[in-house]
Amino acid sequence: MSIVVQKYGGTSVGTPEKIKKVAARVTAAKAAGHDVVVVVSAMGDTTDDLIALLNQITESPDAREYDMLLSTGEQVSAALLTMAIHSLGFKATSLTGWQAGVHTEDIPSKARITHIKLDRIQKELGEGKIVVVTGFQGIDSHGDITTIGRGGSDTSAVVIAAALKADVCEIYTDVDGVYTADPRIVKDARKIKTISYDEMLELASLGAQVLHPRSVECAKNYGLVIHLRSSFSNEEGTYIKEGTGMEKTDVVNGVALDLNIAKVGILKIPDKPGIAAKLFKTLGDAKINVDMIIQSIHSSGNFADMAFTVNKTEMKKAVEVTNKVARELSAEGVVSDGDVAKISIVGVGMISKPGVAGDMFEALGKNGINIEMISTSEIKISCVIKAEQGKKAMEILHKEFNLGK
Amino acid sequence: MSIVVQKYGGTSVGTPEKIKKVAARVTAAKAAGHDVVVVVSAMGDTTDDLIALLNQITESPDAREYDMLLSTGEQVSAALLTMAIHSLGFKATSLTGWQAGVHTEDIPSKARITHIKLDRIQKELGEGKIVVVTGFQGIDSHGDITTIGRGGSDTSAVVIAAALKADVCEIYTDVDGVYTADPRIVKDARKIKTISYDEMLELASLGAQVLHPRSVECAKNYGLVIHLRSSFSNEEGTYIKEGTGMEKTDVVNGVALDLNIAKVGILKIPDKPGIAAKLFKTLGDAKINVDMIIQSIHSSGNFADMAFTVNKTEMKKAVEVTNKVARELSAEGVVSDGDVAKISIVGVGMISKPGVAGDMFEALGKNGINIEMISTSEIKISCVIKAEQGKKAMEILHKEFNLGK
Repeated sequence: MSIVVQKYGGTSVGTPEKIKKVAARVTAAKAAGHDVVVVVSAMGDTTDDLIALLNQITESPDAREYDMLLSTGEQVSAALLTMAIHSLGFKATSLTGWQAGVHTEDIPSKARITHIKLDRIQKELGEGKIVVVTGFQGIDSHGDITTIGRGGSDTSAVVIAAALKADVCEIYTDVDGVYTADPRIVKDARKIKTISYDEMLELASLGAQVLHPRSVECAKNYGLVIHLRSSFSNEEGTYIKEGTGMEKTDVVNGVALDLNIAKVGILKIPDKPGIAAKLFKTLGDAKINVDMIIQSIHSSGNFADMAFTVNKTEMKKAVEVTNKVARELSAEGVVSDGDVAKISIVGVGMISKPGVAGDMFEALGKNGINIEMISTSEIKISCVIKAEQGKKAMEILHKEFNLGK
Repeated sequence: MSIVVQKYGGTSVGTPEKIKKVAARVTAAKAAGHDVVVVVSAMGDTTDDLIALLNQITESPDAREYDMLLSTGEQVSAALLTMAIHSLGFKATSLTGWQAGVHTEDIPSKARITHIKLDRIQKELGEGKIVVVTGFQGIDSHGDITTIGRGGSDTSAVVIAAALKADVCEIYTDVDGVYTADPRIVKDARKIKTISYDEMLELASLGAQVLHPRSVECAKNYGLVIHLRSSFSNEEGTYIKEGTGMEKTDVVNGVALDLNIAKVGILKIPDKPGIAAKLFKTLGDAKINVDMIIQSIHSSGNFADMAFTVNKTEMKKAVEVTNKVARELSAEGVVSDGDVAKISIVGVGMISKPGVAGDMFEALGKNGINIEMISTSEIKISCVIKAEQGKKAMEILHKEFNLGK
């Protein structure tokens, strides 16, 4: 008998009504002859509500107690979903992370899963039950409850599916798949039927925020097929799996736009070894996540210009830190701009097809879009442009690479 | 070092502000040199909110899933209280029922605690930590989360205190002790300094609902001293412990009034063996809890009259069932009255002092209060009277037995 793992996010189980709909979908898979394991997130705003409570108690919550508090959210939704499944006449049981054998590192609030002891899940499946597991959590070597950080429930689902050697890990969300571009911006954006892990990883970190990169990376490691689909329809979504060379004819598979970035530049730094390390180590110490980094030689000789992008909400803090470093390095000054966007194209096909970058830059240029920064990986090219030109750039590139066909 | 166990109910931890006050009290006990274990209930309305959620999912929740759902309530308050204790600069850790080693029967929703494995609690105490344990819950032999039914958190606290051989189990609530009568009714009602387990048991089941009888019975079994006190003041409350004969000079220790009862009578039943069994077995099958039962021979000869009291909310259902039985037994009819009250006096001293019942009946009678039913135990006498005379009766008996001194 084949095993299917399904994961439902917070919006999919946001209300009792929605939980009943999820129960119908889960039991349909069981009725179709599969063994079914379901991984759930906390209901809608539950996690935010719990954090609001703790903010009234303390500004610096202990990480272990934070996990103790937050892990209740998934326990509530798992119990309610199990009751809803019972109402439809199916056998089911809910399991917390520790009951499901999800073992993690001894690091509260951001533990990684180390291994899964499948005994309990397999026992319950063996009794014909649908098993509902709380996502986002596990147990450490001390017997303490841990949560596993951002993208937690997706990762829980993938790891459990991999351990069970499931045929597929279905991740249900409020969008119906991965698109060649944001369908709200590009009219003929097309749902991608199949995408490789690497492409999905680039897209996931680029603003097409449907799947956390961590879960994709984990699926890649195990060669597990993810089926990302809508919890509100029965249509097939997007399969994320290893691409086979023969199928890969598309050079570019998608365009992504990220409006949530800001650019910071530090100008005319007297060039000497270690200046980049000095800047980015200081930013790291201040817990500022830096995305793109560009360093160029200044036209006037022994100076360097350096620029980087950060999350828009961190711009102010980043500028403060950079100003301090600029003084220490005797740089000329610091500039920043919150009015920028990052437009990217992603595709495994780029690796073997030179000239894609040139095509991209040309398409943008001849449409009057100025490129402020460029960063590339093997399967992705990103450009920082003016925010107001972001949507136009997406349409241009979608057309340029013929993605709407 | 002495061990103190403190239990805080739902109203005591109802808001973040109140939780901070509880933290202040807990840390004061630690600062005074005690090892401190705290048992908490769920915050205020949390349990009701969770039940409202599940009612939107199903009318007949599975008991195991019900426990999975409800046990999150105490986990939230335990984590928040622990954070509040940290804010005051003390070391503390929260433990769920299963982490604290609270083992129960394999009976969801109304499991009894079978034993406590103290390893984890003692390890944490040994590291100088205040230990905050979730009340109302444990773990069964399958590794499933169980809740332990009504009066759960009080019972958790008492059992943990007994296992730890604590000096005292302090139960904090919204009243400041046990009174000789309801102080809202009887002006000179007096807080009782010390009361025996048996007296407290009678009072607890008689409407002075400050402590669940189950926790008192459990404390009695272990000879554990309970200190029932207010979470809003520093005054001593009432100690519940084994009375020593020498101290016991009071015949009557308290008066209790229960306005939440109803009387049902079944008239002129042809008397033959088994009629009482027939009636009360049928009521039991209908899940109706019967309190007082009186059977008397009817003046006209071979007939019996029978009367009983039930919770007022169950009167209608009880009358329906009784009507059915009345027809089967060829009785003359069924009468009921929801407008009654039960007034009781309680005192260990009664055992050795005859005539107390007579004093009680006389005091009521000469004040124009008619007694409709009487029931007695070794340390308690209860009378059913008209509801409107309940408060007056309480004042009369409080005075008659000189309780205001």
